Amino acid sequence: MKYAVLGTGMVGKTIATKLISLGHEVMMGSRTSTNEKAIAWAEEMGENATHGTFSAASAFAERIINCTSGGASVAALGAAGAENIGDKIIVDIANPLDFSEGFPPTLSVCNDDSLGEQIQRAFPKAKVVKTLNTVNCMLMVDPAGVPGEHSLFICGDDDDAKAQIRGLLGEFGWGPARIIDGGGISFARGTEAYLLLWTRLFGALGNANFNVELHLGETINAAD
Amino acid sequence: MKYAVLGTGMVGKTIATKLISLGHEVMMGSRTSTNEKAIAWAEEMGENATHGTFSAASAFAERIINCTSGGASVAALGAAGAENIGDKIIVDIANPLDFSEGFPPTLSVCNDDSLGEQIQRAFPKAKVVKTLNTVNCMLMVDPAGVPGEHSLFICGDDDDAKAQIRGLLGEFGWGPARIIDGGGISFARGTEAYLLLWTRLFGALGNANFNVELHLGETINAAD
Repeated sequence: MKYAVLGTGMVGKTIATKLISLGHEVMMGSRTSTNEKAIAWAEEMGENATHGTFSAASAFAERIINCTSGGASVAALGAAGAENIGDKIIVDIANPLDFSEGFPPTLSVCNDDSLGEQIQRAFPKAKVVKTLNTVNCMLMVDPAGVPGEHSLFICGDDDDAKAQIRGLLGEFGWGPARIIDGGGISFARGTEAYLLLWTRLFGALGNANFNVELHLGETINAAD
Repeated sequence: MKYAVLGTGMVGKTIATKLISLGHEVMMGSRTSTNEKAIAWAEEMGENATHGTFSAASAFAERIINCTSGGASVAALGAAGAENIGDKIIVDIANPLDFSEGFPPTLSVCNDDSLGEQIQRAFPKAKVVKTLNTVNCMLMVDPAGVPGEHSLFICGDDDDAKAQIRGLLGEFGWGPARIIDGGGISFARGTEAYLLLWTRLFGALGNANFNVELHLGETINAAD
């Protein structure tokens, strides 16, 4: 499968490297075609790895993974171009974190909207699938890095797209029983808001290498 | 121990009933001294159970548990009166949920503040401990209702108050290893924001009887 990994930071590099190790073709996308980190990564990875602009990567790919920082994601995808994105799946793993006031960050969009929805609205033909945004990037590609059958959330408006990305998550090591389908893309309001807890847990624990496992009891139909 | 349980809804009744079953004295507080639900509850529970206004209950109690709805909590505690609250522990288990636009609710305070902090600011002498707000009220008093060693968060600015309330949580069945101390009361921004995920999970699962277990791996000191 041909993937565009948009973003050259720690998250993008981790995801792109994992995809290469799984035998996929990856073009790492960045704002310019001369991004030094993207060039170095592609050279290190060998023949299945290339690099280019956001638009070149998106044109190349069958699936697009948004690994840019949340505040830059809509602009990065705008630079990629609706004509290159088309009706492809965009796996959105970013969070709209605002560190301008320091740590812990705030969410730049919260409560009545989400980054996942913003991207879906900006590219209505694309199939946005939000997942992986609730764990550290090391854990994204190696769930065994934390013990226990901890959980991963997925959401999006297109069921077939979600099924395809569940397959990718399986390649990453996330077995079907771990994956919780929250429904449509507006569920991203929940998983993004969880970052307000995640970042504070990171601060309190002094460790980013954690995740939560959902446990269900017998059905109670009251929210109190 | 003498407890004031502020609130006569499902949450208040569940907490108050559990406290009675544990041998504590409980005054259920409401806006008026003639609240029918509070009267009926006290009659049913027997000699250790009484009812009264928010202020009467708070004056009676050694510890105060805020079980009012989040949007009404600051006003309820205002009616209780700073002179009756004094330097007592207020266990805040409410969430600032706004259902005015339907389900799922929004948070009336989010991102840069929390209900826990609002209460602490309104009653600076009191020791606000935020906990139990991330689970259904049935689970609050019976963690065995969901399988697994699922977790509970606690936060507050006063370490001794938190230690005392950990003891109460232990009486409810929450063993020490399940309880995660997030630090000061501003951690409530995280646990309250988690409700944006919790309410959507409730919607997606059709079941309010769930909780999450925190799993920790080896330390990684990067938030990416």
